[in-house]
Amino acid sequence: MDRIQAFVKQVEAALQEQDFSMEPRELYEPMGYILNLGGKRLRPALSLAACALFKEDPKKALMPALGIEVFHNFSLVHDDIMDEADLRRGKATVHHKWNRDIAILSGDAMLVKAYQYIAQVEPQYLPEVLETFSQTALEICEGQQRDMNFESRSEVAEEEYLLMIRQKTAVLLGAALKIGALVAGAGTESANMLYQFGINAGLAFQIQDDLLDAFGDPEKVGKKPGGDILQDKETLLMIYTRKMAPKEIKKLEAKDLTGSEKVKAYTELITACGAKAAAEAKREALLKEALFDLEEAHTQDTALKEELAQFATWLSHRDR
Amino acid sequence: MDRIQAFVKQVEAALQEQDFSMEPRELYEPMGYILNLGGKRLRPALSLAACALFKEDPKKALMPALGIEVFHNFSLVHDDIMDEADLRRGKATVHHKWNRDIAILSGDAMLVKAYQYIAQVEPQYLPEVLETFSQTALEICEGQQRDMNFESRSEVAEEEYLLMIRQKTAVLLGAALKIGALVAGAGTESANMLYQFGINAGLAFQIQDDLLDAFGDPEKVGKKPGGDILQDKETLLMIYTRKMAPKEIKKLEAKDLTGSEKVKAYTELITACGAKAAAEAKREALLKEALFDLEEAHTQDTALKEELAQFATWLSHRDR
Repeated sequence: MDRIQAFVKQVEAALQEQDFSMEPRELYEPMGYILNLGGKRLRPALSLAACALFKEDPKKALMPALGIEVFHNFSLVHDDIMDEADLRRGKATVHHKWNRDIAILSGDAMLVKAYQYIAQVEPQYLPEVLETFSQTALEICEGQQRDMNFESRSEVAEEEYLLMIRQKTAVLLGAALKIGALVAGAGTESANMLYQFGINAGLAFQIQDDLLDAFGDPEKVGKKPGGDILQDKETLLMIYTRKMAPKEIKKLEAKDLTGSEKVKAYTELITACGAKAAAEAKREALLKEALFDLEEAHTQDTALKEELAQFATWLSHRDR
Repeated sequence: MDRIQAFVKQVEAALQEQDFSMEPRELYEPMGYILNLGGKRLRPALSLAACALFKEDPKKALMPALGIEVFHNFSLVHDDIMDEADLRRGKATVHHKWNRDIAILSGDAMLVKAYQYIAQVEPQYLPEVLETFSQTALEICEGQQRDMNFESRSEVAEEEYLLMIRQKTAVLLGAALKIGALVAGAGTESANMLYQFGINAGLAFQIQDDLLDAFGDPEKVGKKPGGDILQDKETLLMIYTRKMAPKEIKKLEAKDLTGSEKVKAYTELITACGAKAAAEAKREALLKEALFDLEEAHTQDTALKEELAQFATWLSHRDR
């Protein structure tokens, strides 16, 4: 996946060139801080790749790609306030390092900055790029709200969960690809096929995330398994378990277990009742759909298309 | 000022037609709520007026005008969290009626919605309208941050204060006018003259606000005078008083007065030392500049131009 790696590096270099030393510094410093905490730069790299798929210079997609990365980081800053999280990628979150008000306000300013980057496309593409971005941003807010609503509910249906992760995670991958294709002049139809590819790959990616949280190798994942279980989070694994072993899960819940004992009991049940296998099957079905969508898109660079297919497969099967 | 009143009504009617009943309702209900708390609809009416000044149908400016009003209300929702204010226009603020997280997130979604409205202009005008809006939004964030920074400082220079109110209040009036002119096809030069008119009128408006806070008739203003004084807020009145009566203000501060006694002592000093007269003179100078800018703009509707001049004068001299 050499070329995707090269796009990641190109994005990283462009990010390093951005200036966040403006006044008042309380507003701009947090932007530079959160953008420099690292991250896979997955979304902006996908914009560049989508542009290159149509044999256009990926540089054409660089500014909107940065807009997508800035937007993603804006959403992290505000989500961290809502989750009252102290750490992000092992470092202090913005509201923890500065304070709540600075995190709200510099987050707001990052959302505006994201639009300023997004707007740097050829004027002929601006209306469609802008509407794709705004629609996506709104869906991400909806997804975050649905996720918060789940916290006060004891049961969530599979369709509701899939809608939530689609909005919270998948649409930004889809939009990154679609916008890259649009600025390459790919036309709405091909751009929408890549959007669908991004959606399905994003859903498979998130399901693998849920699986890793429960069953990942702590050495590779970098954290203890079972975080979602300990927080009683509704994931696809729990939704399937409720369906496949309704009595056993109620019994387990009544036991009020804690710590590693709880994680062990739940993961055993999730495996035994077939919920783990069902989640893996769902992930595979989504990946298959993603690869089909990619195949259908009328792109011009076949080697890069193959690389993107490998990349989506790797994302869905990654062990870290 | 009949035509400006008619623009206000047109904006109000269009706002009533907007649908905020989408799901998840926790995200969209607060938008409808805050937008229906009232407000003068000053900014969007100015967009329509600016468009009509060039003999174009003001309807052309209606969608971006709503975008400016939605943006203004977004900023109120987030500012109210930062200020920990329970009331806005006599009703519960969004974070008080729902909660902090809903106020953050539905505020974010309002900012995105604002961009969706702003984008509804003829494609030829979109790049300049969009950049005007983003630049303005960023300056408003800067102004809010500067205002928060003032709270932890004992002294603020006149220039710093004027920059803060320019960014926090005046630029949105300027942008409302500029965007209305741009969508009328007025061209950058005329649009920029109207922007300057908005800036100077906005500064005069804010200074009058400070004066009303200290010296307004409570029957007309609808609140007890001296709110800024009791909160030790740095306003132009205090900045001038520090300059014109440095010893007396230090003596007063040392007395540690509270309540109406404090308000009485401060307002007496502000008047006696000439700070009140100096603020009034600054307001008049800004109003004069505003009227000059308006005169210079190459508009086509002379009667409406006259009405706008009267309106700016009224804003700077209003007693409520």
